[in-house]
Amino acid sequence: MVKDKQYLYIPGPAPVPPAVVTAMTKPVIGHRSSDFSHLYRGVVAKLQAVYQTENDLFVLSNSGTGAMEMALANTVNPGDKVLSLITGFFAERFARIAAACGAEVERLEFPWDGPIDLARVEEKLREEDYRAVLVTHNETSTGVVNDIAGLGKLVAKTDALLMVDAVSSLGGVDIKTDEYQLDMVVTSSQKALMLPPGLAAISVSPKAWGRVEKCKEPRVYFSLADYRKTMVKGHTPWTPAVTLLYGLDAALDMILAEGLPRVFARHERLGRAVRAGMRGVGLELVAPDECASPTVTAVWAPPGVDPDQLRKIMREELGVVMAGGKGSLAGRIFRFGHMGYVGEFDVITGLAAVEMGLVKLGYPVQLGAGVAAAQRVLLADKEQGRMQQ
Amino acid sequence: MVKDKQYLYIPGPAPVPPAVVTAMTKPVIGHRSSDFSHLYRGVVAKLQAVYQTENDLFVLSNSGTGAMEMALANTVNPGDKVLSLITGFFAERFARIAAACGAEVERLEFPWDGPIDLARVEEKLREEDYRAVLVTHNETSTGVVNDIAGLGKLVAKTDALLMVDAVSSLGGVDIKTDEYQLDMVVTSSQKALMLPPGLAAISVSPKAWGRVEKCKEPRVYFSLADYRKTMVKGHTPWTPAVTLLYGLDAALDMILAEGLPRVFARHERLGRAVRAGMRGVGLELVAPDECASPTVTAVWAPPGVDPDQLRKIMREELGVVMAGGKGSLAGRIFRFGHMGYVGEFDVITGLAAVEMGLVKLGYPVQLGAGVAAAQRVLLADKEQGRMQQ
Repeated sequence: MVKDKQYLYIPGPAPVPPAVVTAMTKPVIGHRSSDFSHLYRGVVAKLQAVYQTENDLFVLSNSGTGAMEMALANTVNPGDKVLSLITGFFAERFARIAAACGAEVERLEFPWDGPIDLARVEEKLREEDYRAVLVTHNETSTGVVNDIAGLGKLVAKTDALLMVDAVSSLGGVDIKTDEYQLDMVVTSSQKALMLPPGLAAISVSPKAWGRVEKCKEPRVYFSLADYRKTMVKGHTPWTPAVTLLYGLDAALDMILAEGLPRVFARHERLGRAVRAGMRGVGLELVAPDECASPTVTAVWAPPGVDPDQLRKIMREELGVVMAGGKGSLAGRIFRFGHMGYVGEFDVITGLAAVEMGLVKLGYPVQLGAGVAAAQRVLLADKEQGRMQQ
Repeated sequence: MVKDKQYLYIPGPAPVPPAVVTAMTKPVIGHRSSDFSHLYRGVVAKLQAVYQTENDLFVLSNSGTGAMEMALANTVNPGDKVLSLITGFFAERFARIAAACGAEVERLEFPWDGPIDLARVEEKLREEDYRAVLVTHNETSTGVVNDIAGLGKLVAKTDALLMVDAVSSLGGVDIKTDEYQLDMVVTSSQKALMLPPGLAAISVSPKAWGRVEKCKEPRVYFSLADYRKTMVKGHTPWTPAVTLLYGLDAALDMILAEGLPRVFARHERLGRAVRAGMRGVGLELVAPDECASPTVTAVWAPPGVDPDQLRKIMREELGVVMAGGKGSLAGRIFRFGHMGYVGEFDVITGLAAVEMGLVKLGYPVQLGAGVAAAQRVLLADKEQGRMQQ
């Protein structure tokens, strides 16, 4: 392989478009200037458009984990009851953060190869009053996407805040923050938003603000009150990662120019092609079709194949990088990320690499079968698209 | 002026060298890869060299304020007594963070136009047991640098941890972390380290680790225990700002290639030239010479001149951006940053702009007098340097 020509298929960080890289080379400006206010206000407005919200929204200079901590630290007091919907590795992290903020966390466990069950959530909400319900929209560790529209309807009837980890979905999957009644939605920069890591974001509903005002211990860096106060001037309370904000501005321009419906349709279609392709290779998928993520696909390793060995061969001999399993799925699956700056031939390349990696490992594969299955999906959709025009 | 040709003289963010900008355009890699471990371990080792420490050190994806919170949140339990040396705006922030972490903060106030008084600190340490002493090494709001070597000797004799905010000095001013017995030193990327904002760092002495193990509430994002655990693999606990780390690696290479003694001497010499230049213009300085910062100079506005008006004219008509006063010094001073990627002609340009701005405001100035005073310092030092060779 060409040295250093690497293809990144992990579910974040995802590839960064050249226009975004270029934007980040602009000279740094002071973050107490009017030029900065102009930049920051523009980024916030564009990101609100992608969030489909009129709620307050802040861009944060930390990772998505920090944004999750911000949501909890500003709304939950020690001893408050929080319902945590456990669907995978990142849902576990959300629950851990709630506990670290002093919440009394009730865990509602679901199988890692399926979505949340709304009936069970409804039952819990009937039994007990919670301060917050925590959900992972798109569980990056399993490739399962959860029904947050349905969940929103249930939680809105209660006093609980609905907190959504949309780190690996926002910008790739349709999230109607206001219509779904999502109180706090957090995401980060290095996934479908097409940026390097380093930024996160959070939206805050009026219902959530009501809770922020009663919260005792947000500490400092993650204090939403400080973010709200400085937003009046279009500033951030602490020094922001300015060059990443240049990049986010450029990335949001690209997303809005493509148009949200087209962006979401592209992700859905490429996700379907990846799934068809994996099945064409003869592999089984972790998530059933009805809750399959448009941004990441988790694949069971076939019998006798160590997925980490497969990933090592793909990485070292083909320059193709995929992710392994996390938590209880470590050593059992591999994961193919298809979020953000991804097109048809990225899917083809990834599938071809999986086929070649398996052959290198001595596993019987009909070369080209997975690629062909994906091509058929992509061509069928094109035909359909042409007919609809 | 050439549109968009802007000269940044605020005390952070400071100018970024082209080699650093270029390094940050490299493709993003996964942060659980061995390539990342190699990058991160290298950055940490180089930064330890600049810190002059063998203590553990972590690079953080947040601002310096977050690093200050990290120092306190991991070592101070609610009710612990903390001694805060108040010397300016950023010392106030450090004290606020300590209070937000539940500490009982005792404020020891010093005039904003001078350094800490070690005798008064010694007296306090004799009277009372503190968990931590907080000091701002280089008070960015006043241009005063404090004697942390002397302070280190005093605090080392007690059970208190010495926490140093070195945000605007580290990399520009000699800080011998181990020799001075500094327990936790925090800094951030956008000052003398020549990077855009978005990264911070913290060093942790064995004495500080002893306290971390007894601390109840670090929460999650700033948990030092998590940083220590993942460092075994050369990883960070949460997604790091990878492209900024590429930049930091390149910036540290530049600093170490120039050599720490030369880097510190350059800052000291340019600081002296700025001060001589300001006096040549007829202006008075906030900090006396004996505690004057090598990285930022605060200047009193002359009678009848609004410093913010002067800054506005320099910014809008000359493209030269300086900073205003903060806290009690707002509307009374302006500040000239000279940290990181700064050379002789940056000083000349900044001084010429101050002269021209004052003339534009109708204030009587002998054009060129400040520039000449700086030139004399720079030439005299060159002569001396030549004779010493």
